This record gives sequence, C-alpha cells and structure tokens, in this order.
Amino acid sequence: MQKHTKFEPFTEVTPTSPIAADSHGGRAKCLQRLVRLELPVPATVALPFETVHNIAKGHFPDTERLLGYFKEGTLLSVRPSSEDPDWGGPGAVLNIGMTDRRHLELSQTHGEDAAHSLYLRFIQAYAVHVARLDADDFDAMSPSAEGVKAALALFEEETEEQFPQDPARQLTQVMRSMARAWEGTTARLLRQARGAPADAGLGLVVQEMALGVGPGESGSGVIRFIDQATGEARINGRYRRQSLNRDALRKSDEAMYLVKDPRGASLQEEAPEAFKRLNRYADICRSRLREEMEIEFTIENGKLRVLDAVRTQRSTRATLKVAVSLAEEGIISRDDALLRLPPRALNELLHHQVDPAAKRDVIARGIAASPGGATGKLVFSGQAAQQCAARGEPCILVRRETTPEDIRGMHVAEGILTERGGMTSHAAVIARGLGLPCIVGASGLRLSVQRKTLQTADGRVFGEDDIISIDGSAGEAMAGAVPLLEPFFDDDFETFLGWAREAGDVGIRVNADSPEDARLALDFGAQGIGLCRTEHMFFEPERMAVMRGMIFAETEDDRSAALEQLLPMQREDFTALFEIMSGRPVCIRLFDPPLHEFLPSDREGMRQMAEALDLPLSDVIHRVDSLSEFNPMLGMRGVRLGVTMPQIYDMQARAIFEATVQASKAGDPVVPEIMIPLVSARREVELVKTRIDAVAAAVRNETQTEFTYRLGVMVETPRAALRAADIVQHSAFLSFGTNDLTQMTYGLSRDDADRFMGDYVRQGVYPEDPFHTLDVEGVGELLLLGAERARSQVPDVTLSVCGEHGGDPETIAFVRQAGFNYVSCSPYRVPVAQLAIAQLAIRDRKAIK
Amino acid sequence: MQKHTKFEPFTEVTPTSPIAADSHGGRAKCLQRLVRLELPVPATVALPFETVHNIAKGHFPDTERLLGYFKEGTLLSVRPSSEDPDWGGPGAVLNIGMTDRRHLELSQTHGEDAAHSLYLRFIQAYAVHVARLDADDFDAMSPSAEGVKAALALFEEETEEQFPQDPARQLTQVMRSMARAWEGTTARLLRQARGAPADAGLGLVVQEMALGVGPGESGSGVIRFIDQATGEARINGRYRRQSLNRDALRKSDEAMYLVKDPRGASLQEEAPEAFKRLNRYADICRSRLREEMEIEFTIENGKLRVLDAVRTQRSTRATLKVAVSLAEEGIISRDDALLRLPPRALNELLHHQVDPAAKRDVIARGIAASPGGATGKLVFSGQAAQQCAARGEPCILVRRETTPEDIRGMHVAEGILTERGGMTSHAAVIARGLGLPCIVGASGLRLSVQRKTLQTADGRVFGEDDIISIDGSAGEAMAGAVPLLEPFFDDDFETFLGWAREAGDVGIRVNADSPEDARLALDFGAQGIGLCRTEHMFFEPERMAVMRGMIFAETEDDRSAALEQLLPMQREDFTALFEIMSGRPVCIRLFDPPLHEFLPSDREGMRQMAEALDLPLSDVIHRVDSLSEFNPMLGMRGVRLGVTMPQIYDMQARAIFEATVQASKAGDPVVPEIMIPLVSARREVELVKTRIDAVAAAVRNETQTEFTYRLGVMVETPRAALRAADIVQHSAFLSFGTNDLTQMTYGLSRDDADRFMGDYVRQGVYPEDPFHTLDVEGVGELLLLGAERARSQVPDVTLSVCGEHGGDPETIAFVRQAGFNYVSCSPYRVPVAQLAIAQLAIRDRKAIK
Repeated sequence: MQKHTKFEPFTEVTPTSPIAADSHGGRAKCLQRLVRLELPVPATVALPFETVHNIAKGHFPDTERLLGYFKEGTLLSVRPSSEDPDWGGPGAVLNIGMTDRRHLELSQTHGEDAAHSLYLRFIQAYAVHVARLDADDFDAMSPSAEGVKAALALFEEETEEQFPQDPARQLTQVMRSMARAWEGTTARLLRQARGAPADAGLGLVVQEMALGVGPGESGSGVIRFIDQATGEARINGRYRRQSLNRDALRKSDEAMYLVKDPRGASLQEEAPEAFKRLNRYADICRSRLREEMEIEFTIENGKLRVLDAVRTQRSTRATLKVAVSLAEEGIISRDDALLRLPPRALNELLHHQVDPAAKRDVIARGIAASPGGATGKLVFSGQAAQQCAARGEPCILVRRETTPEDIRGMHVAEGILTERGGMTSHAAVIARGLGLPCIVGASGLRLSVQRKTLQTADGRVFGEDDIISIDGSAGEAMAGAVPLLEPFFDDDFETFLGWAREAGDVGIRVNADSPEDARLALDFGAQGIGLCRTEHMFFEPERMAVMRGMIFAETEDDRSAALEQLLPMQREDFTALFEIMSGRPVCIRLFDPPLHEFLPSDREGMRQMAEALDLPLSDVIHRVDSLSEFNPMLGMRGVRLGVTMPQIYDMQARAIFEATVQASKAGDPVVPEIMIPLVSARREVELVKTRIDAVAAAVRNETQTEFTYRLGVMVETPRAALRAADIVQHSAFLSFGTNDLTQMTYGLSRDDADRFMGDYVRQGVYPEDPFHTLDVEGVGELLLLGAERARSQVPDVTLSVCGEHGGDPETIAFVRQAGFNYVSCSPYRVPVAQLAIAQLAIRDRKAIK
Repeated sequence: MQKHTKFEPFTEVTPTSPIAADSHGGRAKCLQRLVRLELPVPATVALPFETVHNIAKGHFPDTERLLGYFKEGTLLSVRPSSEDPDWGGPGAVLNIGMTDRRHLELSQTHGEDAAHSLYLRFIQAYAVHVARLDADDFDAMSPSAEGVKAALALFEEETEEQFPQDPARQLTQVMRSMARAWEGTTARLLRQARGAPADAGLGLVVQEMALGVGPGESGSGVIRFIDQATGEARINGRYRRQSLNRDALRKSDEAMYLVKDPRGASLQEEAPEAFKRLNRYADICRSRLREEMEIEFTIENGKLRVLDAVRTQRSTRATLKVAVSLAEEGIISRDDALLRLPPRALNELLHHQVDPAAKRDVIARGIAASPGGATGKLVFSGQAAQQCAARGEPCILVRRETTPEDIRGMHVAEGILTERGGMTSHAAVIARGLGLPCIVGASGLRLSVQRKTLQTADGRVFGEDDIISIDGSAGEAMAGAVPLLEPFFDDDFETFLGWAREAGDVGIRVNADSPEDARLALDFGAQGIGLCRTEHMFFEPERMAVMRGMIFAETEDDRSAALEQLLPMQREDFTALFEIMSGRPVCIRLFDPPLHEFLPSDREGMRQMAEALDLPLSDVIHRVDSLSEFNPMLGMRGVRLGVTMPQIYDMQARAIFEATVQASKAGDPVVPEIMIPLVSARREVELVKTRIDAVAAAVRNETQTEFTYRLGVMVETPRAALRAADIVQHSAFLSFGTNDLTQMTYGLSRDDADRFMGDYVRQGVYPEDPFHTLDVEGVGELLLLGAERARSQVPDVTLSVCGEHGGDPETIAFVRQAGFNYVSCSPYRVPVAQLAIAQLAIRDRKAIK
C-alpha cells in the first residue's frame, strides 16, 4: 500500500489513515485499532520510521504543519513506536508545549500545583533527554513555584541558553533526541539481543496530553484484566489521582486499587462510571483485538481517555490459559491458539521452578542441562542417594560425571550436578529423560569423592548432608534451600496439548525404558515407544551379577546358562511395557553398550567381584583390562556384540516374543518392533535377522501362537546412512539415532565436546551446538540421503528420528519437511514436540490457503 | 572361434589346430606353442573342458577314434591341463597301453627291466587312481617279474576283476578317474583357495610316451635356465638314465647334474649333443614365448624329446630380475616387464626375511602387522630399548600396546610385539612407517610389564635379555635366534622402480616426520612429503618437558613463553626437511593429538612431573584428570586445539615460514604446504587461515623476504567430505585422511576393532578389513562426494589420499579412477604404490589401444 501513495512524513491516526506496524510501528498501529473501536483516544499523529531516521540525520519534517493537527496550546506527549513493542525504545516525553505562558494559564485553569507539576516535569525531561544534563541535579526539585524557578535557572546556567518557549522548537528537539537515542550503539545492541534486525526502525507517536492533574476527578492509571502469572480473569492495576500516564504504577503506595478492596479506596467505588467503561473497553479489545490488553487511561476532570493499550505481559502459563480461553469462547480458532506459544516455552510448565523472587547464594555455575529447580541433601554416590531416598530425604546427587552405574541413584535424586560433561553427556540425557533438574560441566567446583566434599571457587566447602539447591534452567547451584514453584499441568494444559495432537501431522513417540516412563508417555499422549533401551534393565544389582557371570563365562554353555537366568526378567520387562502401551507400537533396541560398562572400574569393585564370582583377582583384572577400550563409542558394542556373541540377542528376541504372546493374550494384539543398533553393513542385519527369525519360529511353535514382528535398523553411523539402499532390504523401518550420527559425522564425542563447544559457538565455528539442534548441513544431509536411498528400494519404509534431537523444534521442522513418519524423544519433551509439529502443520495449511 | 566351429571332443595338437587356454587348458596351449616352435614334442591330443566334464558325468568320447591318432601299440600318458597351471589338478598317469602282451614285446625290444618297470608303474597308477586301491600295498613291489605278478594278483584279488588288457578301456577309465577327481569337493575348495573360479574346467592332454627306459642313451630330466631364488642365468635341474618324465627330480641322488660338475657325472659330458639342443630350445622359448621355461625332456635311445615346458617357478626377486632382463634384451617391453609382478610382492624385497628353511619354536601368534624378520633381546619399555641400542645390542620391544611415548624406543628396536591392537593400531602403523617387523594382537601372551616377563600360552616364561625372534610376515614370535635373509635392493630393483615411475600417472608422496624418513623417501623416488606429522617431534625428552610446561601454563604469557622455547626446535626440524627435499613439496600437518598424550598416565609419572614443574601433585593429578577424555579420537584435538589455543599453530606457522626463508636461501625455493587436521566446518579453516596469513606477513616483513605457501585441509570427518564445497573455498588442497575417515564412517575405532574384525571378515560382514583396503562403498563414496563438491568450486584443487590406504593397490586404483593428484604413504610402501600405479596406467593404455 505504502508504495502506491505519496510518502507522508506524518499521518493523523484515524480509522482509515495508511498506518502499518512495519512502517509506523506497533504502538501507532495499535492506537489506530483503538480509534477504530471508537475508544476515546486523544488526537494522535504517527511518524513513520523513515521520518524518524531523517530526523536523526538532521532533516526535520514541517513541525508547524504537524502542530496544526492539534488545538492551539495543547500539551503533547511523544512516545516511541517500534515494529515490535519488545524491542524497546527511548522513554516517552510528556507535556511538550509547556512554556512560561502556559504555566501561568494552567495555574489559573488547573490550579498551581498542577501547573508546577506539569512544567517541572517537562523541564526535567527536556534537560535530561534533549540537553543531556545530569538527572540527579533535578531530582530534589519539588513541584512548586520555587522548584520550577530553580529548574529553569539550572537549565540556563548549564546550557547558557534560555529554556525554549516555542512549542514547535520543543517538539523538534524532543523528536531529534529520541531519534538519535534509537540509533545509538548501545540501544542497537540491546534491541538486537531481543531479536530485532540491525536496521529496525523507530516510529514516533505524538499525542495530545490528557491531563490527569487539575480540577474534578483527575488522574491516571493502568488496568489489566488477567492475572499475569496464571492467566485467570482478574482485574488488576492501579489508579492515582493527580497523576499522568503510568505514574500510578511507579508510586503504587499512593495509588488506589481498581476493584473494591478492603485494604483501601478503589476506582470501582470512587469513579464507578469510568470503571464500568474500562471494563467495556476491555471486552471490546478482547473480542475485536483477540487479545488480553493492558489499558493506559487518564481521567481528565471526570472524562475518561484511553492513551494506549498493549498486550498484557504474562507468564507462559498465563499465555496458555488465555489462548485456551479465547479459543473456547470462539474469539480465536484453535489453530491460532496453538500458534500463540513458542513450543520450548512449555518446558517451564513441566518442572518445579526456583521462585524468581528467591534470594540466590550461588556457589557454582554450569551448563543448564535439564530445566527445573530442586533442593536436597548433598550426596556423592548413587548408593548414598538411594539410602537418602529410603529415609525419605530429598537429595542432590553430585558426581564428577555419571555412568550407567549411577542410574538407580539418579532415579531417586531430586537433581543432579556434575563437574564435567555437556548438553548431551550421560547425566544430561538421563536427567532430561527423567525430567530431573540437572547442571553439568560445573567446572569451577573441586569435587573430592573420597573425602565427600565439594569445594567452591571461593573456597567454601560443602559436605555430605549439607543442603544445596540447583536451578537447572539457569545452570546455577546455590547454598541452602530455595523456595520452589510447583509444576503445573492443569486442564487447560491438557486441552491445549489435545488440540496440538489433533493439528499435528507427524507421529510422536517416546524414548522409554521403564513402566514409569511408559505411563508418563501415555499421560502426555505419545503414540508409542520409539526407543526402548534395554541396557538399563541390567543395572539392577541382581541382574548385574548375572550379567557379570555371562561376561566371565568360560564356555558357550556357561554363557547360555547366565542368559537363561536373564530371560524371565527381560520377559517381564517387556510384558509390562506391552501391557501398559496396550497395542501401541513399542520399538525395542537390542543390547547396545560395550560389556565393560558392566564391570567395575576401580580396584575395590574388582576385588568384590572376584569374591562374588569366586575367581582370582588377577583373572578379573585381566578380563576387565582386556575389555577396556580406547574409544568405547567406536568400539565393540551394538550389533558388533550381536554378531560375535549372538546368544545375547537370541535371549532378548525370545523374551520379546514370549512377552508378545503373553501380553496379546491379556489385551490388544502386540506387534513388537525390534531395532538393531550401530549397524554399518547390510550383512550385519542379515545375520541378526536370520537368528531372530529362527527364535520367532521356535516361540510360535512352542506356544502354538501366531504373531508378527517388525525388524528395523538404528541408523547411527554415516555408513548406514550412505548404504541405506542396501540396509533397508531387510528392514521394515529405519530410525536415525542422531546423537551418535552427529558424533561420527563431526568426529566429535558428545562427552568430550563441552570443553570447547562454548568457544566454538561463540566464535561462530558452529552456528549452534550440533548435539542440541540438528546440523542440517552435514548430519541433515545424511538423513536426507539415507531417507531417499531407503525409499528408492522400499517406498513405504517407516522413517523416524530418535534421540535428543527428536524433541527439538528446528530438527522436527527439518524431518517433517523430509516426510519422516515420526519422531521419538524423552517423555518430558513430548509436549514441546507436539506443539512444534502442530505449529508447522498449521503454518503449512495457512500458507496453502 | 570355438563358437563358429563344430564342437570337437578332442583335437590333435598341431601348429594350427583350434586350441585355447580357456577351452583346453594352459598345458595344451603351451604344448601347441612348442609344436609351433618345432620342438620335438611327441604326438599329443588335447581334450577340452567340456569333454572332460562330460566324461565325469559318464558320457565318453569315441576312444577308439582318439587312439587312432597314435601308432598302434604306442604307450600313452594323460596329464591335466587346467586354465591356469597354478590351480593344480590330478596327477599324470603314464604308460597307458601296457598289457601282458606289450609287457612281453617290450621285454624283447627294451629289455626286461624296462618292461617290468613300465608295467608295474602302470598297474600301480591304475590300481590307485582308477580302482581306488591302497597305494601303500603296492609300495614294496619291485620292478621285476615277481613284482609285476604280485601287483596283478593283488589287483585281481581286491577288485575281483582281471587287470584290463584293452588300451581303449584303460584310457577311458584313466580319463574318467581324472575327470572325477577334478570335480571332487576337496579339489574344488583347494583350487578356489588359489583363485580359481567355482566352475573352472579341466582339460586333458593325451601324449605318446617317450620311453626313457630301454637300450642306448635313455632317460628323462628337467632343465631350468635360471636360479629360481635369484633369477640369475644358471642352468640347473637333473637328468636320470632309465627313468620317465620327472623321475630325475624325485630321486636326485641317483641323477646326473646337467652342467659339468666336479661332484659327479653330467648331461653336458655324457650327452653333449642333447645338452646343446636343450640350450637352443631354451633360447627359442625365451625369445619366442618371452619367458624363462622349465623343460621336461626324455632321451629315447639317444633321441631327444620334449614332453612339456612350463614357466619356471621363481621367487619375487627372481621374477623381477627376469622381467628386467627380458625387457633389457628387448624381448618384452618395459610395460610388460612391469606387469609381471603383483605390486604387493615387492614387500618381500624390502625387509629381512626369516629363512624359510629355519626351524621355528613358535611361542605366540598374532596379527602380521608389518613384514620382515628380526631377532634380539626381549625389552619391555622404550627406555630399555634405547639402553640396549646404546650398548649396540639388537632388541625386540614387547608392550601391551604402544603409545607415542614409545616412539623413540620403537625407532631403535629391531622389531615390535604387542599384546593388543590390530592392523592399524599405533604399533602397526608406526612399525610399517619405520619398515620394522611387527606383530600385534598376540593375545595368547600374558605380559607382566612390572615383573618384566612374558608368559606364553604353554606356560613358558621369558624375561628381559632372553633372545626371541619375530616374523612380521607370518605373525609368529619364536624362542631364540633364527637365521634371517637380507633385504635386497639391487640395480634391477632400481631399474624396475625407475620404469614404474616413468609409466605412472598419479603422484606419489611419502608420509615422513624425520630427516631419516625423508632421505629414505628420496631413495625410493617419492615426489615429495604428503604428510609430515609434527607431533612426534615433541616427544624428545627436552621438548616433552617444554610441552608439559605449556600445557600447565596458568597465563597466556606463560604459554607463549613455553612456545617460544619450542619455536627454534621446530624451525630446525622444518629446515632440515626442506633442505633434504630440496624444493620438492613438503606438506606439514599442524599439531593434531589431544594434549593428554603428553602427560603421564600413571601415578609415578605424575609425581615426577609435579617435581619437575614444581607444582603440588594434586594440581598435576587434577589437570591430567581434567584433560582425560572418554573418546580421545573424537575429542579435543586437531583444529579444535588450533581454534581454542591458537598460539600453538601460530608458533608452528612461524617455524615453518622461518624455515622456508632459511632453506630457500641455501637451495631451491621452498613453497611449504600447511595442512589443518580434523576440520568439520569451513569457519575453522577461516579462523586458522587468518592467523597464519598474519604470521606469514610478519615473517615476510621481519626477514624482508618474499615467499608463498599453500594452505589445505585434511579431510578426516564425514562432515568435511560432505561440506567440501564450503571448505575448499579457503583451501589450495584437500588430503583425505582415510584412517580417521574410516573410523568415523563406520563408527569404529581402529584400536578397538581388532577384537572382532577377524570374526567380521570371516563371516563376510565386511568383505575386507576397511582399515586395510578402502571401503569403496561407504568411505569411498565420501571421497567421491568430497572430490566432486570441492572441484565444483575450485576445479584445480589438489586432491590426495594420505594415511595407510595410500599404499594399498586397490585403494590406489579407486582414487586414480577418481582423478586424484597423488597418494601419500609410509616410505616402505612407496615401491608398492609406484608399481600399482604403473600397472593401472599401462592397463588403461593397453585398453585404449
């Protein structure tokens, strides 16, 4: 539109004047909307970005003509109007037009106090913003004849000029100072940090002052209609007599309540008509602007004026509540409601939070690896954590880094703090899976596991049983207990996620290894289990002992005997999962980790194990030693174990099939999915498939029950992606394990990367931590290549992403674009993923319309 | 040809009869060539594969017609004729046609002894091969009237049949037994192991017997004209009177020498005319068949007959010698000479070899990681190896596995034996680089480094100073000293490699870190250094101390001070290399390994270090601990160090440039190549390039000398290959480090892979160890993608492969096809690479003609 009309250096705000947010700023646009809604907005003129930019360069518009829009002698305010209100801008300047003469006149019409106050305030603002004098010097001056005099004298002394008495000159100078402030370096950096582009423009809004000072009921206030924390309908705000604009908020002790209140006077009682009208305006805004607005108003001698209205700032919880309410009232569509919340914001709702108001005695900072707050006794081992939990005492587990042996301790701890590790270290991944607050890489700490002490950088020492708190959202550990806010899944949350699921067009499954995880997944509405890691199941003490027996087996028979013992346990694990998921798909990854993870790493552990297995210590040491690896990530694990020690997979397949038969009898028919990890060659799949098929046939025969199953491959090596056309020949599905794939594509261990990842992201070497957001250019190409090649052979092959990236909105956008069938992520990331997918689908539908 | 003529079930061997190696076998073809050369070959009929295959199935050709080619009553031999003589075949059967009646007749014409011998021999052969009787039962029988009688009686008793008296039946049965033997499972597996295809056919050659028994000068022999070990011209072989075919070789104590010899009678003296004619025949074969032939001959009552001639079996050294001789005499072209030796065979010539005749007391078997034999005192540490070497005593270094700290010890040891590791473990790679015999993964051993003992699987214990030997070609360690054969680079070797270099069309550089390596590389004719690893330079004790100081530096200044100390040392390193290479390209890889490789891993080492650096032990432990990594291969190394601790690369760049200025003054101008390791993103290259450019500018300014340099990238991560179009923007060259690239593409640590690689290759999961021969399908695709993408941006970018695969003939074929500019490999692999490239180029040229 702008293009086709003559450029106007300013425009009066009328229902039809050509005003747009991207040329005049959000405030100007919003004021136009209020005018259209016939709210009593004082006369207003909007200056577009271009005009303000010219002003900064010294080219002024015709100020006299501008003033022509207002009644002679009217006082004016100038307020900033950037494209997005969040980008900030220079402060408003009020009372432009105040001169010695107006001062005199207003003393008569509005009383001396009002006149002094209006003039002094303008002199101060002009002195500070335009003449760049020191604000402190004006602070002590009181709104009195003397005060005004002193202010004028100080101004003249400092500037060696008389205080300007020409309203046009005043206005020009104010606009120039605001225009220049916007172009300053600091202001630019600040707004860029809030997401503004480098060339973001500033509009200005020149408005007739409504005078909240003077005779009759005069004052100003701000009114909101929702609770900013919860989103519940609740009128709040303040009104102050004899004040201007937002003064009521600044000095709230001198202000009135809005709604009738036992604690003091209220607008509802003192000016019931104005109060009623404000409520009506709120309803109008809500239904016509489809938003909860905060209204800035002035009562000028009994007459209500609306100066401005902005979207009410609110918490994530409130945003969700408002969106659901508006949609339920039919004001906005469900789709629009879903678009109102950035997916990641949902994280806040899923965890305890440290009360933002709490005092923090920070003792260490690290990487905010899993959000939420927790408080508890300091413990230094998984065992101590379990003991603590047994006594019913909450605890925070502190470790150099965690290993699978710590899993049970992590399950019972309130939070986790590690000295080492990054966003995708063991501790971080597990904690996110468990929804536990976690800080990793708190490298300023000095941890002594032996002495059970934690020494902070400033020399303080904390021991076992000392209370600490952690804020996993901020990456801060604190001494003592801090107040926590409860997580909040209410009906609105349920409703909102329900809409998201309906709107979404990509499946969502969950990474779940335990019945608890599985139940949580169902609560969040996951469609199945996309990754059930089986190795955690072996870390329970009795199973661990059997595992070790298997590892130390001298003969095939001994090995088989140990696996025999594990079979019923695994069968129970799977039966439980199948029953909970009642017919929904469950994808079980066969045993993946290197065997040495099941062996002790210290001398004492080896001694105990030698005793337990009745072996010479030297044998144990030798075996542990011979299994240790230089690069365990790239070692003897996954399908490599499956091929060279096939009895393990045989046992697992049998457990899965027997559980299938059992669970199908009791409920919905189960079609288990079996996933082979760390594949790099087609033949690996063939070898495993042959044996699993044989086990299936045996179980069918023994149980005289028919069942089917789906075999697939976890694509974790670059080679598996490149050779997907081969590998898919024997696979019903391919699930991309993007954690490992990222490690291998970059040649970068996630456990070791945090030492330099910060540096790398800061220097722009990597745009983001690739373990956090999928590296679209590298790892992403492997996903696309793999998908394309797999589909070239098996067009209907099921494709998915499991692992940490599965819950990341950007990654989800990428794989959705590539037509993947589902993503799988840890339970607490499911809501985020659901919303991300819903938004993508909605935006696509809107684009097509 | 075969197609267009009527199928002939047998063909007389004449100069023009339709006989081909791929239908009648190599022997039949060779006999036809001898006939064409007018050598006195007895009448011969050749049966093609198809006929023999039919015989095996019971369909016989017209034997009467076959016999029609021979004079009535002639005795016949049947010999196998497979396509390639190396594939083997059933033994020859002689004297077919011997019957009671011929026995009587021959007693009169050739004497009784001859007749008995001929008949008995045929009865034995027939009984064993056709009637399948036990050979042992016939062994004791003497060639006499009684012997013949006993043999006939035994035959009749065992078979309950009369010995066949019809020559046609005899011939049929002999051919049938040979045809069936060929089709047996064992025979098929044996020949497949020698490279024969599953459906390889057998031809048969039926030949008139030349009788080396009977009146006058009668006998048989075999004559060769070269020394089979050296290839020198030297007549050798044996002649035995009253014998048939190859008898002279079987019982050489009863045989004559061929050339006049003080030790006994010789053919030259006893039958000078036959001897002369044989020499003439050899000359004819040599010039017309273009090969050194071994001739099987018979003198029948003074008349010389040539039964057969085959290529003289010979050692690699002899093969090379003969090829060079034939080419120098103009009998074959240089190209043909180069095609006569498989490239890998050259390895044998480059190392000491364990004398094949030596007695072996094998104490352990492992992976044959680097070829050659060595003998020396057992030592258990690099330090002990150095002490041994200082005393002038050869030693064998035995370690669990080697680390960079052992390098100096490895340099002085005669050979290396490790308990762990695979073909591409540190020990194996370094040993091949040094040309040292090496066995890795000798897992049957029990090594105690503390007690300094080596216990073998059978319980024997060896201690320091015990002598052992290793055979790195066979992967065997032996007790005591074994006799070794010298390596052999003679003039012929030089000549041959010179021809190879002329014929080749892909550059060859060498991986060399030291002046010794560089000189060796020049000796082998390498065109430059393709990979100079700089880290080994820091392992000398004084440098190590400075390195550690740098790692422990508290401030930037301390770090810079430590690097200052290293600068002159590095400058000397590079100056020496540049001077030796006199203007040839030298590609220096910047510092690559993780810093913890320079720190001690045991308590005692840390204690010593704490003392040396005057630091509390706890600080040292903490630092060592904080630098340790879960997966060092994927950790803080290469360009990641370069970006986060840029002073190291600054120092190295300065050393390189100062050395460039210095070496260019003294000799040919130097254009150093600087290679950045472990790149995964373009920005890494930009950051490093900016700093190196600045260092170059500073050095140019300080020295007032102009020089240029080339900056490139080592492509080791899959991502670098995928993003080659980006990365090449700042690179003059890309060199693919296929070791690391293979590790990351497969997700497979070369140090840990040997635990299952054997299994994997045996089960056909991987067709070959991908660290040994490039995985063309996976890693190879990344090479092709990388090359294509890089060239799309910079068409003349230099592309190469460095690392272990650079010396592998199959890998070379692959990268040559992809148009790579050069390969770089360890010095001792250069000759193999040169020959491999020459052969590829020659074959391409021949294909185009």
